[in-house]
Amino acid sequence: MAGAKPLGEFDLIDRYFRVPALASTAVRADVTLGIGDDAAVVTLPPGQQLVAALDTLVEGRHFLAGTSAQSLGHRALAVNLSDLAAMGATPLWYLLALTLPRVDEAFLLGFSQGLHQLAGLHDIVLIGGDTTAGPLSVSVQVLGKVSPGQALLRSGARIGDLLYVTGTPGDAAAGLQLERGLAADLACSAAQQLELRQRFLFPAPRIALGRALVGIASACIDVSDGLAGDALKLATASGCGVQLHIDKLPLSASLLAFKGPLVARELALAGGDDYELCFAIPPARQAALEDSLINVKCAASCIGSLVGDPGLQLLERGKPVQLQHSGFDHFATAG
Amino acid sequence: MAGAKPLGEFDLIDRYFRVPALASTAVRADVTLGIGDDAAVVTLPPGQQLVAALDTLVEGRHFLAGTSAQSLGHRALAVNLSDLAAMGATPLWYLLALTLPRVDEAFLLGFSQGLHQLAGLHDIVLIGGDTTAGPLSVSVQVLGKVSPGQALLRSGARIGDLLYVTGTPGDAAAGLQLERGLAADLACSAAQQLELRQRFLFPAPRIALGRALVGIASACIDVSDGLAGDALKLATASGCGVQLHIDKLPLSASLLAFKGPLVARELALAGGDDYELCFAIPPARQAALEDSLINVKCAASCIGSLVGDPGLQLLERGKPVQLQHSGFDHFATAG
Repeated sequence: MAGAKPLGEFDLIDRYFRVPALASTAVRADVTLGIGDDAAVVTLPPGQQLVAALDTLVEGRHFLAGTSAQSLGHRALAVNLSDLAAMGATPLWYLLALTLPRVDEAFLLGFSQGLHQLAGLHDIVLIGGDTTAGPLSVSVQVLGKVSPGQALLRSGARIGDLLYVTGTPGDAAAGLQLERGLAADLACSAAQQLELRQRFLFPAPRIALGRALVGIASACIDVSDGLAGDALKLATASGCGVQLHIDKLPLSASLLAFKGPLVARELALAGGDDYELCFAIPPARQAALEDSLINVKCAASCIGSLVGDPGLQLLERGKPVQLQHSGFDHFATAG
Repeated sequence: MAGAKPLGEFDLIDRYFRVPALASTAVRADVTLGIGDDAAVVTLPPGQQLVAALDTLVEGRHFLAGTSAQSLGHRALAVNLSDLAAMGATPLWYLLALTLPRVDEAFLLGFSQGLHQLAGLHDIVLIGGDTTAGPLSVSVQVLGKVSPGQALLRSGARIGDLLYVTGTPGDAAAGLQLERGLAADLACSAAQQLELRQRFLFPAPRIALGRALVGIASACIDVSDGLAGDALKLATASGCGVQLHIDKLPLSASLLAFKGPLVARELALAGGDDYELCFAIPPARQAALEDSLINVKCAASCIGSLVGDPGLQLLERGKPVQLQHSGFDHFATAG
């Protein structure tokens, strides 16, 4: 863009964000006022509660410098949609706060494509936000709906409930290592490496399953900081402890090929960035769960159960084992 | 804090943000689920529309390195409340995305005090958000309500409508110059300098007036980027132009003393960071406006009118004049 006239904030919003939003707005009667005024005005369906999540991605912390702009647009929205999925909520609208060091049209094109593509998939509309100059970071706010009293909390699990996780946790963490160039001499194929990378770059929030779990799951959390840590958060919020059977972890073939079964297990337990759902159900609801999983075409595996003893216990073939594991604590690991 | 155990994200949220939120939550039946789960769940009063604004403050761009933490907490919320004020909306809840280079408890204490104090003044509740490590920036999302069809838009003004501004614009811009140490040998007193500084550091969003303007104002915008530029945005959105009488600008005694009347005028027109309201009313509603201003104890001045010729025209004693002025375009000025 050398020599080009600097693109002002308002042109920038128009070019990359306003048009698709208005195109969607035209078919969405619930958006009274989208981008372009001081605030957005929308109509929540009568009798529904509002669900709101706000998450930020910061360069160097949640994504690498030079990361794919399309992935960044996708992930900024996906991590928030995942929060709504974990509540059993239906996303409706979102707002975007984008901080950029400079106007870079190639970046904006990729970023907005990643964002709009995922938004289109879930039929949600960009209704407002803010662009500003500064170190690269993205905050997205997603707003959605849930029927009163139906939101899936972290705190509803009871002793004896079964613990499930969707998909194949650990893949995204392996993908991040590949993105960082930290993995050499791998046994896994180029196709497998691409698959792992994609799992990090383009996570798929489990919106459909989250909604299907309403009335079935007793508690739910999205796996962003590592399965073991997030499962423990769910258990603790529910006043329980949790036993995880590490021989029941659903490990993908790509992850097993990546650096062997021990690393696969470690990444599945503590890797983070999965954006899968971890949820508890009373044993009597297993059949209802199986039906739901088939309906929404989502795989989930029973990996443990809620117990009376507080804390996290890892079991292998039914016997306690010790493994190093940790959650992803943004500040504890930042120093 | 040398030698202290690093404070994890969750402790940090607990210590500075969760407790006051829960304390408020206890007396707010509309918050079903506040901080601590994947997303917040709230209940909008029946028949009300939802209003949402999201604004980011970035260090070096919207505030100076080393700025008062209390001011930053206040301003991050105030700029968003000001957006809701400009819609005639009533704020209810907010979310906070705070990015910090490191855990700094003195900063967090001041920041959370600034935030909670302003939130308390407007009876709004912190319901969620995100803290992360990275270059200092703050995104706040405010959610509020408005009766259907009652939101004040930028686009409702008509030719012949009168244009008003609240308060004394320009003070904040002078205050920012003082904060930056850019102003020496001033005629204004220490008390006046403090007053100007406070106007920058602790702007008062015009929530009560915004609500009172519903049914009176034909259009409204909040003055964040400079009065002249924001008045022009309102006029343009309404398909009009605007005439501003620069001899009718409400200039504070402190601003006039700061660097004399010419600079005062320039700062009032183009300074920014005022967070006053600029609004249009049909001339027939002047009496109703005067009543409202008395009711909410807010001063506003008639500074011009909406006209057919597009663009902005500045008048002095009824005659056109040329002044340098500009809006605050985040990227055009960033290079």
